[in-house]
Amino acid sequence: MTTTHIGFLGLGSMGAPMARNLLKSGLEVTVYNRTRAVAEAFSADGAGIADTPAGAVVEGGIAITMLSNDAALEAVTLGQDGLLHKLGKGGLHISMSTVSPETSKKLAALHAANGSLFLSAPVFGRPEAAAASKLWIVQSGSSDAKQRAKAILTILGQGIHDFGDDPAAANVVKLSGNFMILAAIETMAEAQALAEKNGIDRAALASFFGQTIFACPIYQNYGRTIAERAFEPAGFKLELGMKDVRLVRDVAETAMVPMPLADLLHDRLLTSLAKKRGKLDWTGIELVTAEDAALR
Amino acid sequence: MTTTHIGFLGLGSMGAPMARNLLKSGLEVTVYNRTRAVAEAFSADGAGIADTPAGAVVEGGIAITMLSNDAALEAVTLGQDGLLHKLGKGGLHISMSTVSPETSKKLAALHAANGSLFLSAPVFGRPEAAAASKLWIVQSGSSDAKQRAKAILTILGQGIHDFGDDPAAANVVKLSGNFMILAAIETMAEAQALAEKNGIDRAALASFFGQTIFACPIYQNYGRTIAERAFEPAGFKLELGMKDVRLVRDVAETAMVPMPLADLLHDRLLTSLAKKRGKLDWTGIELVTAEDAALR
Amino acid sequence: MTTTHIGFLGLGSMGAPMARNLLKSGLEVTVYNRTRAVAEAFSADGAGIADTPAGAVVEGGIAITMLSNDAALEAVTLGQDGLLHKLGKGGLHISMSTVSPETSKKLAALHAANGSLFLSAPVFGRPEAAAASKLWIVQSGSSDAKQRAKAILTILGQGIHDFGDDPAAANVVKLSGNFMILAAIETMAEAQALAEKNGIDRAALASFFGQTIFACPIYQNYGRTIAERAFEPAGFKLELGMKDVRLVRDVAETAMVPMPLADLLHDRLLTSLAKKRGKLDWTGIELVTAEDAALR
Amino acid sequence: MTTTHIGFLGLGSMGAPMARNLLKSGLEVTVYNRTRAVAEAFSADGAGIADTPAGAVVEGGIAITMLSNDAALEAVTLGQDGLLHKLGKGGLHISMSTVSPETSKKLAALHAANGSLFLSAPVFGRPEAAAASKLWIVQSGSSDAKQRAKAILTILGQGIHDFGDDPAAANVVKLSGNFMILAAIETMAEAQALAEKNGIDRAALASFFGQTIFACPIYQNYGRTIAERAFEPAGFKLELGMKDVRLVRDVAETAMVPMPLADLLHDRLLTSLAKKRGKLDWTGIELVTAEDAALR
Repeated sequence: MTTTHIGFLGLGSMGAPMARNLLKSGLEVTVYNRTRAVAEAFSADGAGIADTPAGAVVEGGIAITMLSNDAALEAVTLGQDGLLHKLGKGGLHISMSTVSPETSKKLAALHAANGSLFLSAPVFGRPEAAAASKLWIVQSGSSDAKQRAKAILTILGQGIHDFGDDPAAANVVKLSGNFMILAAIETMAEAQALAEKNGIDRAALASFFGQTIFACPIYQNYGRTIAERAFEPAGFKLELGMKDVRLVRDVAETAMVPMPLADLLHDRLLTSLAKKRGKLDWTGIELVTAEDAALR
Repeated sequence: MTTTHIGFLGLGSMGAPMARNLLKSGLEVTVYNRTRAVAEAFSADGAGIADTPAGAVVEGGIAITMLSNDAALEAVTLGQDGLLHKLGKGGLHISMSTVSPETSKKLAALHAANGSLFLSAPVFGRPEAAAASKLWIVQSGSSDAKQRAKAILTILGQGIHDFGDDPAAANVVKLSGNFMILAAIETMAEAQALAEKNGIDRAALASFFGQTIFACPIYQNYGRTIAERAFEPAGFKLELGMKDVRLVRDVAETAMVPMPLADLLHDRLLTSLAKKRGKLDWTGIELVTAEDAALR
Repeated sequence: MTTTHIGFLGLGSMGAPMARNLLKSGLEVTVYNRTRAVAEAFSADGAGIADTPAGAVVEGGIAITMLSNDAALEAVTLGQDGLLHKLGKGGLHISMSTVSPETSKKLAALHAANGSLFLSAPVFGRPEAAAASKLWIVQSGSSDAKQRAKAILTILGQGIHDFGDDPAAANVVKLSGNFMILAAIETMAEAQALAEKNGIDRAALASFFGQTIFACPIYQNYGRTIAERAFEPAGFKLELGMKDVRLVRDVAETAMVPMPLADLLHDRLLTSLAKKRGKLDWTGIELVTAEDAALR
Repeated sequence: MTTTHIGFLGLGSMGAPMARNLLKSGLEVTVYNRTRAVAEAFSADGAGIADTPAGAVVEGGIAITMLSNDAALEAVTLGQDGLLHKLGKGGLHISMSTVSPETSKKLAALHAANGSLFLSAPVFGRPEAAAASKLWIVQSGSSDAKQRAKAILTILGQGIHDFGDDPAAANVVKLSGNFMILAAIETMAEAQALAEKNGIDRAALASFFGQTIFACPIYQNYGRTIAERAFEPAGFKLELGMKDVRLVRDVAETAMVPMPLADLLHDRLLTSLAKKRGKLDWTGIELVTAEDAALR
């Protein structure tokens, strides 16, 4: 027995607008959040409120998780009153958090043993994109899981990109993407430092590249942020970037792929954390470059 | 006395289509190339052919240089039968090669003493872009030089971006851009290696990012080239990339800007040269990453 | 009740000669090894042979562990038939393996709750040094533990260096030392590559520095090994070096200490493992430098 | 005609004690220094004082140069009133400065054309070692040059190490050595930062390694300096270390030897210079590590 009831777990800056979009679409949604008060705000939108992860899902229903890390995902799935057993036969778990490929593999195996489906479906985009249903979704897992998830993912994003059967694949793509974004940030930080010390306006440099050979959102938006050193409020916290680069390094070590650039980024993040900048936007790693060049 | 006669010096893969576009516009152009045979091919297009740099320019006219490095630029400008003195009072030298800021400063000072104008105007774009008048031009120098060069640069490019009075500035911007492109190449090489070793299709990864958060030419075109390891024929030779990163490091050292990412790129290029890959396209630095990860 | 009976757990290339030296001193020793056959060889030397970790120790006695990693140490201490509870009140656990500071902290706390003492006492030296009682021992923990361990450690090493009360400290010192050794290896590898490509004899270079400004064992012995590329048989396996650098990076991340040199070493080791060189001596990271410089 | 008259050029912190030791040995010495007042102080020791480089040497005599860089060496040798032509047939030039291999090759060729001998003989050791005739000397060049220089070098150092015929070789060895020393400094800086943040006394760590596996002068002396952050007064200025690493990178690039560790050291030095620390001892690069780890 399968139903379209959705249990949505994790109402942070990304999960909240996503859950709202599902409610707006007229779907039946029960929400769960570790801090219950956050969940209660959704009753006005017609959501059911659950006290436990298991309480958010129905047998044969759909669970969507959007949590901050592997431990939180494991806790709501496998911990006390976790969703796995409640979901049972015919259920579907759409895992949209940025987590390690290992965790996806583990959960996929447990779901298979449980008779339920598992889809790995992390996203690219900031809270504004989530609110506007403009997320880019990458997915991997079984065809059955994809087929059943399709209508829901279509509500949440502007495009679904498929990376095959292996539930771990979508997580590797997500981690690769965050690595690439942070590499672009470091690139711009070094280029702008070079420019500034040669008397060139940082914003003019960023604007030029954003309009020409790097005319894409990452260079346009982050280029300006870096030029202006507008690191607060954070769009994506530096400490979360650290979590992601840590996962990148773990995956790289397991797969035996030396990534010196990932190491450099880790170094920038760790220096930033040592200097208590974890709450800044992750573009704030620029400050390390600026300080090394005695620009600040 | 100023005239619109143009002496075009340097008919390599970039210079040749640029000179042709000027001829097509009906301008009077005399060409010079170190290997005379290359120049002779332009007489069919109506160009005059010169035996020496000085022979290509007229007093008070315009000289455009598009040469492979600082030494070649200095040779045609200051060497025997160089263009500087012939150009004389009222002349204009538009320097479009990728050279060091120091060389621009030096030439600008010599032109000023000579009564002639100097404009630093390097370009972004490959030979196809040059042929299609789609170059991105960055300029810096005196307003007089810019005003006089404007009509000509408009023929050659799709946009002129100004970086102020300092003739060195445009060169720093050009070098920064090449650094940024090569950083993007390294970024994609590492990300694709991580993907490949996790069973993910490299081309699918490149295509996804090129359509979404990195939807700009550098990531789209180079992403595909790297995924397919299509390093021959070279669009831009690896050994020329080395020349540019060397200039980046020189400028960074002079300005006291530590650039660890530039060092990593230099390391990749140097390994590639040691392995005799200097004639490959510069995206070919990917082979170092592939070999380190035992993918080849 | 305390006794001087020693349970020695872990008879690998380091543990075996250490256990033999204790037996030679006339101490009562029972040995345990995961593969029982290895332990049986010690009965000729007068050792008792145990089938389980617990079986090797007596109540109030002494346990010495010399194992390959954190997991093995935790297994013999806390696992089924582990030594912890058997050792009981008045016992002493001397932990000599290269493990993480976290594991030492954890074990120290469990021993304290158990009424037994815990001493962290990792060593520097290769199997030959262990056989000759020439190990350098670093220790940290409670004064009671140190006082009781002193006579035994004096048998095993040529010097005991104390790093205070925190049981984790000695492990940090041990990891720092292995980091420093591997850094010296990388240093020599790069210097010798530079020399070789300039027509200078690698062995002559190593010999010169080993006799003058770097006249100490690490540079003398490893310098020659690297010059001759004598990476087999391994004195210390590259894959074990990887384990240690991984621990270094973990400790560095926890303590928020950016260590770019540790990252470089990790990169060298990972490339080596990708190329299936894990069984070579850890000086074998030199091959990466040699290949990058096209020396091989 | 050859004589044993010595012209000694360059009376800096190294050259001064070296010249004094030659005078003490009873040799006839004329000294030259760019700032003449420095030279005049040597007349009390029996030295002749010269106004020009050429004035310091006699035909067929010996010239010893101990200067701060390539430009200074070229100036006294080849510039106006340079020593080369004055020295003439049968003369010998012992070049003891830390300079590039290229410069040695160039000077050796010019001396050969001049009928004079050239020996490359840079040294390891600080001013105290120079004063105590305890320098380590590395030499390369023709056998004739070595034979004639032998008695003099024996006065200056505690050992002469030969690296063959190529006059460039000794310079490569010298540069390799300075690279290795600076690499050891960075290694200790990172290890001590790790220790300090784990509550371990920096000086105790340095002392332990200096007494055991790294019992050699570099680790003993610099280990203590780094632990105490005693960067003033400078034994060897950071800005001079930068000059040397720059030469290392140049040689490495020419020989096509990627040296990521040399790049890391360059990065540390450049950050230090940007922060106006060029007059500190070169162990002062430690401050970069300390700041990145928020230890200061």
